[in-house]
Amino acid sequence: MNRQTRKKPILLVALGGNALIRKGQEGTIEQQFKNLKVPIRQIARLSIDYKIIITHGNGPQVGNLMLQQDYCDAVPKLPLEILVAQTEGQIGYMIESTLDEELMEMGIDFRPLVSLITYVVVDKNDPAFNNPTKPIGPGLSKKEADRIEYPVLKTSKGYRRVVASPRPVTIIEKREIQKLIDMDFIVICCGGGGIPVIRKGRAFNGVDAVIDKDLASARLAEEVGADIFLIATDVKGVMLNFGCKNQELLRFMSLKETTRYIKEGHFPVGSMLPKVEAATQFVKTRNKKAVITSIKKIEEAVNGKAGTEFIL
Amino acid sequence: MNRQTRKKPILLVALGGNALIRKGQEGTIEQQFKNLKVPIRQIARLSIDYKIIITHGNGPQVGNLMLQQDYCDAVPKLPLEILVAQTEGQIGYMIESTLDEELMEMGIDFRPLVSLITYVVVDKNDPAFNNPTKPIGPGLSKKEADRIEYPVLKTSKGYRRVVASPRPVTIIEKREIQKLIDMDFIVICCGGGGIPVIRKGRAFNGVDAVIDKDLASARLAEEVGADIFLIATDVKGVMLNFGCKNQELLRFMSLKETTRYIKEGHFPVGSMLPKVEAATQFVKTRNKKAVITSIKKIEEAVNGKAGTEFIL
Repeated sequence: MNRQTRKKPILLVALGGNALIRKGQEGTIEQQFKNLKVPIRQIARLSIDYKIIITHGNGPQVGNLMLQQDYCDAVPKLPLEILVAQTEGQIGYMIESTLDEELMEMGIDFRPLVSLITYVVVDKNDPAFNNPTKPIGPGLSKKEADRIEYPVLKTSKGYRRVVASPRPVTIIEKREIQKLIDMDFIVICCGGGGIPVIRKGRAFNGVDAVIDKDLASARLAEEVGADIFLIATDVKGVMLNFGCKNQELLRFMSLKETTRYIKEGHFPVGSMLPKVEAATQFVKTRNKKAVITSIKKIEEAVNGKAGTEFIL
Repeated sequence: MNRQTRKKPILLVALGGNALIRKGQEGTIEQQFKNLKVPIRQIARLSIDYKIIITHGNGPQVGNLMLQQDYCDAVPKLPLEILVAQTEGQIGYMIESTLDEELMEMGIDFRPLVSLITYVVVDKNDPAFNNPTKPIGPGLSKKEADRIEYPVLKTSKGYRRVVASPRPVTIIEKREIQKLIDMDFIVICCGGGGIPVIRKGRAFNGVDAVIDKDLASARLAEEVGADIFLIATDVKGVMLNFGCKNQELLRFMSLKETTRYIKEGHFPVGSMLPKVEAATQFVKTRNKKAVITSIKKIEEAVNGKAGTEFIL
């Protein structure tokens, strides 16, 4: 490893669901690959000056797999953590192959690049297990929602199934990921927040849950010592009075302001709130840059020209 | 890297479907995890003296996903290569977490261990695209088979869907895998033979196929310079007159004998034949040890005490 490589700062980008499926789209595979080019092209360019870790969500994809299982009694049903693992394979492949193509377009013949299966320890006593809040899968009509046996929540996209979303305690592969970025590998990992497991002595048991991918990404960013933690989503940044006439983009947010705005209820649960919490957690622990921005403005946000930056 | 590490030989183990689902089992997730312990415990012990690469099949799992898609019109259908990617996530996680547990049981606190998404280039002109031969998914009754729109084949397990199985040309992640085993990472990869893609200039396009996992594993074993290529399956080794009264286990097989036995039709297509071809291909290219053995005798076979060994 030369000095140049060692000095490169570590950028962790957490891609939101809209990196794959945009609002109003059905989410065909062609749409998902096309959408991915927007963030991935920017990340490919950033990979020249930064060590890169990419994480991603899986809400629509894991929900689709659950729904398919419901419709089919011909094969054994799989528990939720296995479906999360399946989406890590699916989305990991899509991101990796898209990034491979973008790097080739840039004339980069070889930059080591891997998509890793990742699992994440959660606490078996996490109160989230008794209170499912994480919406997954497609928006359903009332009639469709009545057909399934699981809890649902009425959201802006229709009725959506909700599952438990415990907090991430530690990323099992953190030491491997650390070694890989030390060697300037680009690492795609922690898909869908990671496969949730509880540890019992020398055994891991998968649990019926989906971890919030922003909180898991923040945890990973802390554990591997990231220098910038960027959350890419479908809005320009954190807004006050979001959706109202007087909505206002915040370019900077101090921890004090964050606490106040959360109390005032500016950030919807299961949407902007976990992102704000994840960014805040990272800034508190690492005292480094965290930023929430649009999927289209990743490069600008890294360069301090877009998004909402969190400051101590 | 110390001299000790550099000197360790590279062992590639290709796990057959029965590592996860045994004959006659329905294939619940509990059964799959339990079955996995048998080969993985042996591999954990071997990892002390060998650098380890583990590959695996995905026939039943990918077929189940296809069947679930058929039954459900509520969400967009995904192409076959995406389903292969999903099984890499699923089985990669299962193998990795089982191996983690076995290493902990042995008192090994940390051995770097990753499951990688792997994609594999195939030739767009491969004749296999016009002649689907690879059985996937569960055995179906005649009535169930008539219900689906894809080609099926009558096998010993019932009617099974068949898909194209082109030959692997190169493993995209071979350089990454090489770097990882250089650093003594245990690498789980090439699941289900890898995600099949064709390369068009600077783009990769997934294709509707499932690559034979033994042929893909042989290709990978050549590309990373493995010292032992071991195929673990549900029989003790290569048999002459398999299933007959006079069946005979071959402990050694020369390339000359192999050619003759293939001509005499001793090895069923889609079963023992691709394994024999994969082992032969590896021995021809590398002039190192290839062995086909039972899932229960991996350690014995590595130590030259079980299975069928291929010799020049």
